[in-house]
Formats: sequence, C-alpha cells, structure tokens
Amino acid sequence: MREAMKKLISLDRERGVITHIAALLGWDQETYMPESGIDERAEQLAIVENLAHEKAVNPGIGELLNRLEGEKDLSGQEKAYLRVSRREYDKETKLPAGLVSEMARQTSLSQAAWVQARKNNDFKRFAPHLATMIRLNLEKASALNPGAPPYDVLLDLYEIGSTERSIADVFAVMKRDLVEILGAIRSRPQSDDSFLRRRVSPAAQARMSQYFMGALGFDKHRGRLDTAAHPFTTTLGRDDIRITTRYIEDYFPSSVFSTIHEAGHALYEMGLEVGPDYSGTRLADAASMAVHESQSRMWENIIGRSLPFWGAHYGHIVPMAEGALEGVALEDFYKGVNRVEASLIRTEADEVSYGLHVIARFELESALIKGDLAVEDLPGAWNDTMHQTLGVEVPDDRRGCLQDIHWSMGSFGYFPSYALGNLYAAQFWTAMKAQIPSLERSIAAGDCSPALDWLREKVHREAAALLPSELVLKATGSSLDPSHFTGYLRKKYSAIYGF
Amino acid sequence: MREAMKKLISLDRERGVITHIAALLGWDQETYMPESGIDERAEQLAIVENLAHEKAVNPGIGELLNRLEGEKDLSGQEKAYLRVSRREYDKETKLPAGLVSEMARQTSLSQAAWVQARKNNDFKRFAPHLATMIRLNLEKASALNPGAPPYDVLLDLYEIGSTERSIADVFAVMKRDLVEILGAIRSRPQSDDSFLRRRVSPAAQARMSQYFMGALGFDKHRGRLDTAAHPFTTTLGRDDIRITTRYIEDYFPSSVFSTIHEAGHALYEMGLEVGPDYSGTRLADAASMAVHESQSRMWENIIGRSLPFWGAHYGHIVPMAEGALEGVALEDFYKGVNRVEASLIRTEADEVSYGLHVIARFELESALIKGDLAVEDLPGAWNDTMHQTLGVEVPDDRRGCLQDIHWSMGSFGYFPSYALGNLYAAQFWTAMKAQIPSLERSIAAGDCSPALDWLREKVHREAAALLPSELVLKATGSSLDPSHFTGYLRKKYSAIYGF
Repeated sequence: MREAMKKLISLDRERGVITHIAALLGWDQETYMPESGIDERAEQLAIVENLAHEKAVNPGIGELLNRLEGEKDLSGQEKAYLRVSRREYDKETKLPAGLVSEMARQTSLSQAAWVQARKNNDFKRFAPHLATMIRLNLEKASALNPGAPPYDVLLDLYEIGSTERSIADVFAVMKRDLVEILGAIRSRPQSDDSFLRRRVSPAAQARMSQYFMGALGFDKHRGRLDTAAHPFTTTLGRDDIRITTRYIEDYFPSSVFSTIHEAGHALYEMGLEVGPDYSGTRLADAASMAVHESQSRMWENIIGRSLPFWGAHYGHIVPMAEGALEGVALEDFYKGVNRVEASLIRTEADEVSYGLHVIARFELESALIKGDLAVEDLPGAWNDTMHQTLGVEVPDDRRGCLQDIHWSMGSFGYFPSYALGNLYAAQFWTAMKAQIPSLERSIAAGDCSPALDWLREKVHREAAALLPSELVLKATGSSLDPSHFTGYLRKKYSAIYGF
Repeated sequence: MREAMKKLISLDRERGVITHIAALLGWDQETYMPESGIDERAEQLAIVENLAHEKAVNPGIGELLNRLEGEKDLSGQEKAYLRVSRREYDKETKLPAGLVSEMARQTSLSQAAWVQARKNNDFKRFAPHLATMIRLNLEKASALNPGAPPYDVLLDLYEIGSTERSIADVFAVMKRDLVEILGAIRSRPQSDDSFLRRRVSPAAQARMSQYFMGALGFDKHRGRLDTAAHPFTTTLGRDDIRITTRYIEDYFPSSVFSTIHEAGHALYEMGLEVGPDYSGTRLADAASMAVHESQSRMWENIIGRSLPFWGAHYGHIVPMAEGALEGVALEDFYKGVNRVEASLIRTEADEVSYGLHVIARFELESALIKGDLAVEDLPGAWNDTMHQTLGVEVPDDRRGCLQDIHWSMGSFGYFPSYALGNLYAAQFWTAMKAQIPSLERSIAAGDCSPALDWLREKVHREAAALLPSELVLKATGSSLDPSHFTGYLRKKYSAIYGF
C-alpha cells in the first residue's frame, strides 16, 4: 500500500479510537455514573471531543487527501476510502469557527428552552430558538455547499446522495399507501392486547432480553446489555458494542422489542468488517443513518414481530413471563404485539402509522427551511397535517410539534432516515426471501442465522464503501422502491385484521 | 490570586481530568467490558495516558514553578501547592526518556515472566527479570536523586519523607511486639469460625455491602459499588468515586470486609476537599499511600471488626444472611471474624500477623536493592524469615517469594506503606477516642458519623498539604509511635483469646 495511504489510515484510526473513548464516557453517563459525577463528566467529554475534532481537522489529512486523490491506479476500495474521508474532512473543516461555536452555544440554549416549552406546553417560549436554529442551519448549508438548495445539503448530511426531490417521490407513494392501509385497518375490529399490560418483573424481562440477544446471534464476547432511561446502541471499540434497554413492569413488550431493535443496530456495527487494511477507519463506518435504521427495523419488526419468529420463541417466553402469558394463544399474542392504532406520539407509533409521522415532519421541516412556513405557524400546520394523514386531533403542542428533540438540536434533515430505514429493510427482506427460499422455515425453526448471514454479506460488509443508493441496488438488484414496504404491510395486516 | 498561580492550577486541573478519563477506562475494563474489548482498550488507555503524561511534563509548568518559587509572601497553602507540584513535576521529568521506555518494556516482560513463574513454581524463570528490575530501579533512584541512598529514594516515592532508617526504627518495635502477641495467641485455644463458610448468595452479600456503605456514610450520589475479580477503589471524577467487591458464596465475610475496606479508601477520596481554589489539583490528592491505607484499615479493622460496631449491626445482618448466622451468638461471630492464625499468604493474613509479612518484605527488598542479598538467594532468605517471624514453613516459592506482584512491576519501596497504614490508623484512633469520649458509644449505637467527622477534619481535609509525618503530628499531637498499634492489638486480642 502507498505510504501516504498508510499515513492517512493511521491518522484516521487514532481519531476513531478517540471517538470510542468519548463513547465510553457517554455510555457510562447513561448507565452507571453516580449522579454527582455529571459536572466533571461534561469537562471530560469536552476534552475528548476536542481531541477527536483536532485529529479530524489535522491539516495533514487535507494534504494527504489532495495528494492521493491525484494518484492513478487507485483500487475500488482506495477510491471509496478517499471519498468517505474527503466527505468527512470537508464536513469538519468547511464550517467557519465562528459558526461552529455559535451553533454550540445556541443549541445548548435551544435545547434548554425546548425542555421548558414542552414541559409547560408553551410553544412561544421555544419559537425564537427554533428561528435561530433554522437561520444557523441555513448558514451551515451555505458554508458546506453554497450552490445547492439548503435542505438538500442538510438531507445529504444524514442520507448521503439524497435530495428533497428523491425523498419526496418515495414518500408520496408511501403516504398514499399507508393512509389506505390505515383506513382498511380502521374499518375492522381492533385486536385485544390487554394481556401485554400484565406485570413482569425486571429480572424476568432481563432474562427475556438475554434470550433474544442469543436467538439473534448477538456475540456476547463483543458486546453487552445494560439498562438506561432511553434505549440506545453505542460502539466503544471495534470489538465492544453495547446496547441498552429499559424494563417497564406493566408493559414488558417494550423491553423485548427495544432490545431486539438495539441488537439489530449492534449486529450491524459488529458486521462492519472491511478487512484488516481499513479496520477502524471511516470506511468501516455505517453506510448511513437510514441503513443503520434498516437493520434495527428488520430485526424488530420484519423478523421480530413475525409469526414464524414467535412460533419458534413463544414457547420459551411463556414460562419466563411469570404467568403473564398463561392462557394467551400464540395467535393472540402475535396480534397483540402487532396492534395498529393511529396516535399522537411518533416514538410510540406502530409499524403502519410510524411512516406518516415521519412524512409529516419531512414536509414541515422542508417548508421551514425554505421559508414557506413561518415558525409561528408551525403548531397550526402540524395539527392540520396530523388530522389529515393520521386522523388524530392534537390536543396540545406538548403532544404535537414540541414532542421531538430533533429541531431543538438543529437536526433538520434527520427525520427522513427513520422512514427510509423501513423502506430499505423491506426491500432487503424481499431480496433475502427470494434468494433464500427456506428463510422463513429457518426462522420458524428458531434459526435466524440465514438472515444474519445474508445481511452480513450484502449489507454489513459493504460498510461505508457504497452510497446507500448503490448499496440497495447491489444487494437487491433494483433502486429504492417503497412498494416493497407497503406490500409487506398490506400482506401482513390484511391477514391480521382480515381486510 | 497571582496570574501565574491560576495558570499553574488550570494546567494541573486539565491533567487531573484526563487522569480521571483513564480511570474510567480502567474501571470499565475490570467491571463491565466485554472480553473482546481488551485489545482496543489497551490502545485507548495508551492514548489517554500519553496525553496525561504530556500535560504533566508541559515545560510551561516548569517555568511557572520556577517563577512562583521565587515569589515572596506566599501563603501556607500556596507553598504547599508548589511543594506538591514541584515534587510531581520532577518525578515526571527527571527520568531520561530511554530509561522510561526501557522500564515500560522490561516491566511488561517481567510481569509476564512472574505470572508463568508463579504458576509453575519456577523461581529461576523469574530471577533474571527480578535482577533487571533491581538494576533499573537503581538507575531510576540515581536519576531522581543521585546523592541519596537508592532505597531511600524509592521509599520516598511512596511515603514522602520516609527513609530506611526511619522505617526500620518503627518496624523494630512493631516486629518485637507482634511476635510476642502472636506467641500469646498461639498458647491459647483457637476460635471457631466454621459458620463463616456457610453459603450466602451473591444477592444477599450485595445487600449487606450496600447496608454497610450506608452505615459508614458513603455518599451514593458521589459513588457506587460494582463487582470485580480483585476489589479496588478508583476516582473517576471529583464527585465520582467507585469501589468494587467480590462475592465468594462460601465465605461471605470476604465481601463484607472488602467493601468496608474499599469504602474507607473512598471516604478519604470523597473528603479530599481543600477549598474551591485548589479543587481538582494535586493539592487535593491523598497525603500518601500509607495515609490512604490508614483510612481503609481504620474502617475495616479498627472500627469494622470491633465489638461495638457489630453490636450495632449484627442484628441487621443476621436476617440478611439467609440462615447462615442462625444460632451464632454475637460474641462468637466477633471472635470468628477476628481469628488470628499465622499463614503463608500476605493478602489473607489477619490483623496481627499482617505486619510481619510486610516487615519481611521490607527487610528483603532493602537487602536486594543494597546488594546485600543476591537474587538467587532470595527464596532461601524468604523462607528463613517466614520461619523466624511467623513460625510457618514455606512449602514452595509459589506460596513464598513469588506470591506478590509488586517486585515484578519494579515497585520496590511500596510494601512498607501497608504496615505504616496500620500504624497511622491506630494512632489516629487513639487520638480520636481521647478527643471524643462518646466515640465507642456512638459506634455501638450504629452512628459512625463522629468518627467520619473527625477523620474529615483532621485527615481528609489536609489532603496533600502536609507531609505524612506532619499530618500525624498535627492530628494526634505526637510523632509516629508504633505502640499505639501494638497496644490496640494487645488489648483487643488479650480479651478475645484470654491471655
């Protein structure tokens, strides 16, 4: 390998190791840190994050990139690595220092205001901060790519290669179909899921979580499960990937499905192996947020809420449930954990209505960024959209446009990733089933390894070497097509609800 | 405050925060890290430790010290801070880089050889490494203080201000008395402690540990308890001090007393408050290893194995012990946890014979460093000493001179701290009892706060501002005198064994 490439990789790896130290500081803060540790923990994180930033913006990287980008005879992997490195280097170096520090300051103020505004159902308290976050994101987009429409620049930060147009095209089909499926479900009798509210102790739920980590193929030598207020997955090292869950005593499915969801993220992180030359570099990062989300949704919903999966595992879970599932038939349990009901809160939404929550946010944030929607008109526009697409009436902003943290942090362009994740997952699933005829039989027999093997080979091992659009095309043979997702939902829910 | 002093403090604080990040990496490695995380964890630690070292040897510190040491009108606290800072700066900067890297390399080889040698009872395998560690420590002593006897320089690294002479004087009295007390105990019938081997589940032991942390006044907002293979205390932040223990199912006193021991270390760390000007600096460090050990021994042995203490807590512990203590009277329990019996292994030794283990190591390591004992003669000398002082026959080197890790790491001069800790603790105890007539009545009523308050005021709050010898003199009114310790032992064990 070229000396310059080796040098670039070595700088990149050191930066990566430092980000893992920051991840440990964050993980510990959410899991075990005693409460009074928080003040110094903030100082510790600042030191490590500054160090990671210094390593990332090292001018030596810019020089190496300039030199290597001019080289001939670059291999495919080398080209991919230079593309990924260039993208991240530019993202970290193109923003003026003044803008970076103003964003940091304003984000902190904005988040604090959002917490208060949500608590007191007081949108006016948050509105000026939202306006500031929009202004700063316009400046950011302009600094990163002055020629492009700002919302496209922001979208590209999370889902590389996407534009408002490309997402709008996909979401239009998806929205039409989701509204139709939701309407069909509404016309049918609702399933009973009251047995899911029976008490199951945290210790029993922890045993279930460990059981499902094993069933999915989670390598416990390379990761672990702990509890946290909000479930998350974090990478503390190339071979140290941890997930968290929480145990709600009167709603045990919360921990079961959050553990499976986070395990899906972790399996992806564990599978990001691009060979020893590039291990620990940005080439071994995830392809995108949406691809990451496709892995968690694949395991949580497509596999983890399927009848074959529960056919294999329900008999093991009933005796672990301390009597809560006595007398509950498999079919009823399956219907219970797949109950669909339009509601107000995105994070509590089912598989069908979830996409509509995301589409609403996509439409609203693109209008905010383009100036087509004034900040003070957001609550009304929000409530109208929720009424039109989900058929729900929003009683207050707390359960409306103040429910999510994202805009208060200036994360415009992030929401679409959640829905794209579902679309990618369903398209991967269609291809996987076509290529492995025995797939569902294996899952029904308790063996998820054919699914994991397929994901490892087709998705995980590509890591960041392909753009998400290239990855989908290569893995499935066609470009992103939302009909895989809506077709999957129609088939599944017509069987459950009988329409 | 002078600008230069503020600058020095700011550099020192940043270094301190970085050492706490390293402490988190170490804590996590011993408690929760999945096993495959170890390779990258070593890289992470190397980065953080290098960074801490860079901060510690910053030439700016040297310049600030030179400037400030020449200033007039320095306050007592300023002088103390400059003394501590100078000492640490010199320790970190006076060693030639070549020696530092050779020590790192040889220590790693030596430790690996020691592990093998101990496992295979093969002293010859370790002997050449021991010789190398001695040579390197002689070079280190010469670099740090070329005019002084090498063993004095090494002792001073752990117990500042101590010399071979000062320690030998104290140990001579102690050795004479310990041999005498041990002989008296041997002449009496042995106590029964078989009930301590009854099974108590880890969960019950964990409840006991939490109970005793509460009883001692451990602030659970500023710390926590976890499990690890070898119990330890570590400081992850000014307000984040963690202890660990281990649960041996057929010997629950192990976790009870190790938790109390580590909580004693943690209470000291939590009490190192020298005011806001110097918080987070080296002035807020412990006075010495031996003073640290005095705090753990005070709580574990002097208070934690006393009859008044168990009079208050035994009634709470019996119902937590899952039947193991049914029918065991308080007096018998007290005698059981204070059983004295000379044995081969230092870390398992009781309060009386422990000091003799340490004195043997002190005598042997000083002879090794001075060249009065050849490496190949160590096993014979060890076995002779153990026979003469403890009356035990050493069956093999594994249970003899290969049992401790210290010399394999080049930590010559460390052992005396353990015994000095017992001496300091007993002398503090004598003074505390004289100053607080109701002390033992409070402890007997379950209230340890008068003891903690006294330690906070007289010991913890001084932090590193006084030399250990100054601290003992100020807190107790007299210089270190081993008769407090041996007097305490004689009184306690003559009552237990009836001599």
